[in-house]
Amino acid sequence: MYIGIDLGGTNIAGAVVSREGTISSRKSIPTHADRPSHLLMKDIAALIEDLKISAASEIKAVGIGIPGIANPDTGEVISCVNLNWRNVPLRETIEKAVGIPVFIDNDATVAAVAELEIAQKGRYQNAAVITLGTGVGCGLMIGGKVHAGAHGIGAEIGHMKVGEPLYRCNCGGWGCLETFSSATAIIRYATYLIEEEEKESVLKPYVLKNTLNGELIFKAAQEGDEVARLTVERLMLYLGKGIMNLVCLIDPEIIFLGGGLAHAGEYLIEGLKASTDGEKYFPEMPYAQLALAELKNDAGIIGAAMYAALQFDEK
Amino acid sequence: MYIGIDLGGTNIAGAVVSREGTISSRKSIPTHADRPSHLLMKDIAALIEDLKISAASEIKAVGIGIPGIANPDTGEVISCVNLNWRNVPLRETIEKAVGIPVFIDNDATVAAVAELEIAQKGRYQNAAVITLGTGVGCGLMIGGKVHAGAHGIGAEIGHMKVGEPLYRCNCGGWGCLETFSSATAIIRYATYLIEEEEKESVLKPYVLKNTLNGELIFKAAQEGDEVARLTVERLMLYLGKGIMNLVCLIDPEIIFLGGGLAHAGEYLIEGLKASTDGEKYFPEMPYAQLALAELKNDAGIIGAAMYAALQFDEK
Repeated sequence: MYIGIDLGGTNIAGAVVSREGTISSRKSIPTHADRPSHLLMKDIAALIEDLKISAASEIKAVGIGIPGIANPDTGEVISCVNLNWRNVPLRETIEKAVGIPVFIDNDATVAAVAELEIAQKGRYQNAAVITLGTGVGCGLMIGGKVHAGAHGIGAEIGHMKVGEPLYRCNCGGWGCLETFSSATAIIRYATYLIEEEEKESVLKPYVLKNTLNGELIFKAAQEGDEVARLTVERLMLYLGKGIMNLVCLIDPEIIFLGGGLAHAGEYLIEGLKASTDGEKYFPEMPYAQLALAELKNDAGIIGAAMYAALQFDEK
Repeated sequence: MYIGIDLGGTNIAGAVVSREGTISSRKSIPTHADRPSHLLMKDIAALIEDLKISAASEIKAVGIGIPGIANPDTGEVISCVNLNWRNVPLRETIEKAVGIPVFIDNDATVAAVAELEIAQKGRYQNAAVITLGTGVGCGLMIGGKVHAGAHGIGAEIGHMKVGEPLYRCNCGGWGCLETFSSATAIIRYATYLIEEEEKESVLKPYVLKNTLNGELIFKAAQEGDEVARLTVERLMLYLGKGIMNLVCLIDPEIIFLGGGLAHAGEYLIEGLKASTDGEKYFPEMPYAQLALAELKNDAGIIGAAMYAALQFDEK
């Protein structure tokens, strides 16, 4: 058995997972991200101890998906904007506390491992998994291996510059895909259309109550609301550019879309097909398929556990 | 010994090359690209026979770099715009004619093999080689393996959409990097500034005589000519965007710049450093180095031969 930990800005979720990707027990605790890193790591270690007790057999390794830049070789978290972490020795600290091998990598990378290894049963050697949530994450499999780059800043489609430098991104740059095509981005844009451009919309009550979210916007767009439609079309336009830039470098067999916004299903896929069609080079060649990720909310914890299993097997 | 063939739109260059990348004899013939493919292939086979005779020892394999999209598995040229080729069975035809194993791939990919395997002695596992010539080519090494994509349309940075759809590209798309940052593109832009915007420039006599080329533009830019400077800055702006898009997906250790325009040397590298600096995400992280390719004009033929050697060794 393996333990997978999904370290998020709001919750730290963990589970005991079999080599086949089945969860046997799980537990989640609030992150309280404003605390210093050593207190968060104490909580992570305690969560692992709890999960260990609940496991039916021995835990071989722990995997932790982090919302930032990891150095998988040293086990250090290099940078994690949402947690305000810089150069935190996560693996070393947790290994000392729990006495089991620990492996860490970016949360989008481990989520891609879950999708490709478990849901897709390892059938793709070249594939991308794009996660549309609060931000835009990406995991890459190239030539059968997880690829996160030489400095840990690869597979970052969310920070590809695809548009005008209208918004400052969390990363410190301007014009990143994430500032156009994440849940955060579409909430901001729909709010702008309703409040600044004074457009009518079924979303207005949610804006006033500050409860607007990405899924509500997608639902309203499918029902014909103009503000929602404009907002979703904008998301698809920029995401389409990002996807085609990925295609023209990596040319994967298939690209999976996951995360909260992918609950829109075929509506998202059809929209992206339309927006990428206009960006094709060699328009007559076959292109990467676009498909919905099958693993939903548990991709983070299952992926963290499977990432640990893969790394543990290699050792 | 191996034979490397660089199939270009103007000339077909070939050479006998040792496993260490040293050329022992060479020959070049005009392409006459307007002829049907079977006549071109006859000439290629005859060129190989000539080179075989000149070789001191047995030729193990032949590599051919083609200016288009190849299927390395079937040995077919899928599409080659400049030669007007579609689905041409290049490997099969040449193997039958010369009786030696033949391997084919894109010319930018084999040039990258030459740079990384021979000039750089295989020291990089993750690297890109960008060739700035008539077009903008790219070869990728990811995880120690040449990566050209699942459909043969990867490593095509020249067709990344980085700008306004001002020009139609050879590929059939609009706004490709190649329409902004190739020799063809800068000749067109400098000509536009001189003829349409009626700007004064030391390049004007070359425009009138129709003899302007990329190296003249770079030279004039370094000497302070305004038209040339504007033209080169525009090339660097868009190339910088393409490079940063490559970085945020692949995050290589190093990116080499080669091809005719790279003769500008450090002037090109310094300009690209400036233009990529403004596009950085996570600005404090270490990034891929930018460096000049060491192999110059023979990268095509040496790379084709080394590509054949690598593929032959794997068989």
